[in-house]
Amino acid sequence: MIEPRSASERDLYALVEDFFRHRFQTDNPLITEAVRRMLAAGGKRLRPRITLLAAEAMGGNAAEHLALAAYMELIHVATLIHDDVVDGAQTRRGVNATAVDFGNRISVLAGDYLFAWIFKNVTAGYDAPIPHILSSTLAAICDGEVLQLRAMGNLDLPFDDYIEIVEKKTATLFGASAECGAICGGQGPGVRALREFGIHYGIAFQMMDDLLDVTSDEAALGKPVGNDLHERKMTIPLICALKTGDAEFRTRVEEFFDAELDEQAESAAIADLIARMGRTGAFEATHDAIHTYVERAKLALGGLGDSPARNELASLADRLSRNS
Amino acid sequence: MIEPRSASERDLYALVEDFFRHRFQTDNPLITEAVRRMLAAGGKRLRPRITLLAAEAMGGNAAEHLALAAYMELIHVATLIHDDVVDGAQTRRGVNATAVDFGNRISVLAGDYLFAWIFKNVTAGYDAPIPHILSSTLAAICDGEVLQLRAMGNLDLPFDDYIEIVEKKTATLFGASAECGAICGGQGPGVRALREFGIHYGIAFQMMDDLLDVTSDEAALGKPVGNDLHERKMTIPLICALKTGDAEFRTRVEEFFDAELDEQAESAAIADLIARMGRTGAFEATHDAIHTYVERAKLALGGLGDSPARNELASLADRLSRNS
Repeated sequence: MIEPRSASERDLYALVEDFFRHRFQTDNPLITEAVRRMLAAGGKRLRPRITLLAAEAMGGNAAEHLALAAYMELIHVATLIHDDVVDGAQTRRGVNATAVDFGNRISVLAGDYLFAWIFKNVTAGYDAPIPHILSSTLAAICDGEVLQLRAMGNLDLPFDDYIEIVEKKTATLFGASAECGAICGGQGPGVRALREFGIHYGIAFQMMDDLLDVTSDEAALGKPVGNDLHERKMTIPLICALKTGDAEFRTRVEEFFDAELDEQAESAAIADLIARMGRTGAFEATHDAIHTYVERAKLALGGLGDSPARNELASLADRLSRNS
Repeated sequence: MIEPRSASERDLYALVEDFFRHRFQTDNPLITEAVRRMLAAGGKRLRPRITLLAAEAMGGNAAEHLALAAYMELIHVATLIHDDVVDGAQTRRGVNATAVDFGNRISVLAGDYLFAWIFKNVTAGYDAPIPHILSSTLAAICDGEVLQLRAMGNLDLPFDDYIEIVEKKTATLFGASAECGAICGGQGPGVRALREFGIHYGIAFQMMDDLLDVTSDEAALGKPVGNDLHERKMTIPLICALKTGDAEFRTRVEEFFDAELDEQAESAAIADLIARMGRTGAFEATHDAIHTYVERAKLALGGLGDSPARNELASLADRLSRNS
């Protein structure tokens, strides 16, 4: 959906792709193959791009931090491999999920191995606090996913609880990407500012992901529209719709969450719910929430000196706002 | 099966249990509960006991290294939680597998969270090379499990390949337990010797585990007899039996591995195969292999000064030999 636009962004994207294609290899050929296939299916490489931009914003040289940037994407990939196992997902980014091609056993092990491989390399190549930031981030991601599972179908989920879940499961990795890149690029208060940027960017990013699930189409998503509704996930547009919608809307959602429908009836029910959500003004409310977090992300950049990298980070954030 | 015997071993066991009961807690209550339940189901705590004994053998004080020792057991527990998901296991140590009580989703996430939680604590509390040893160990465990999956049903698996699998999936964690304990206890060539001890002990341990699968009973195992045969796993008694058995034995194994039997027919076939394995002399050959690795483990201890802890490590190894 968001493709690199400026020349230097294309360069960063190409640098990361080149690293994955030519320098990524584990000791286990089967796992290397499973991970490469997942990487080849696409992805915007936002996490590594943010790592490299953060390093440059602190005065560093992006090309020196490619491995670190790649680890950020690989943490994301490992969590996706496990997500697809636990969700029983058939496709991911439009191609078969790892679990479909390799089986659940290899997929669980491949995810575990990838986590271990990342930490093995990070502990060998990076001083404190990088290894600690990455392991704390992975713990937060899992904690957030458990919280999300427990919140499923809870129509009364408070907005603050939603933010906590999103911050843990999605935003901490963006925060860590920016923070670790910043630490490797230089020292000073910019490190904290860049982490803040990453956290707020990540929250806005997840909100946009939630929104696209109900406003985009299957071709663009690489998975069925309304998949979050199908999974009874509490997303920001649903929370907004429940807040401003009438009692009938709430009843419809309750009925849908309780029902066990066949595929056709489920698709029809999802399409109906999405139309009803739209009429509550939930999509506009979600735009507003995204805008708020994009502005907070850009505000965090205020403490940094002016640089092309800082401007590109701001423009990455702006693009989320525009996309929504 | 093997219970602590000497007074000091009971003390170490009690210290570790006390740590788990009163000091183990993660930020996620559901995951803490899942892990505590797994811990409460039992286990001999061999890995933490070896960590503490290694620390003492190097002149350290066991009580100061309880957290490190506990992490060794927790890495083991996290791999068990994931193993049970991928194996679809119903029971573990005689009680419900985590996946049965908590579901596959929570189990995959709980294992991931536990790995991350361990690394988060280890990177916060321990200097190099401890974090690197632990992450390399986890990578080796996963690599070994993938190799084991690929070797399933391969009746021509060479003995050396079996040893590579066992070293990676089981022995590296014993090696790391001893090595990390040793590093925390003191410095010098004893560190390397203790790692060697752990590796050889771990290989003998896995061989005994393989043997008990076909010579013990369900009550003692906490899972059905012949479970490795059921899973088409290449174990040391099977490899020995295929080496010395006749063509008919090999044909029977081939037929069993190819067949899809109902539960009753499968049990009968497993009982028949085990009886045939026994007649090839495979159990005695396995005893001999265990004895060889126990002797290598004890030999590795030769470089250490005399101490009660060193003697206890030797006696732990001897007990494997006697048990077989």
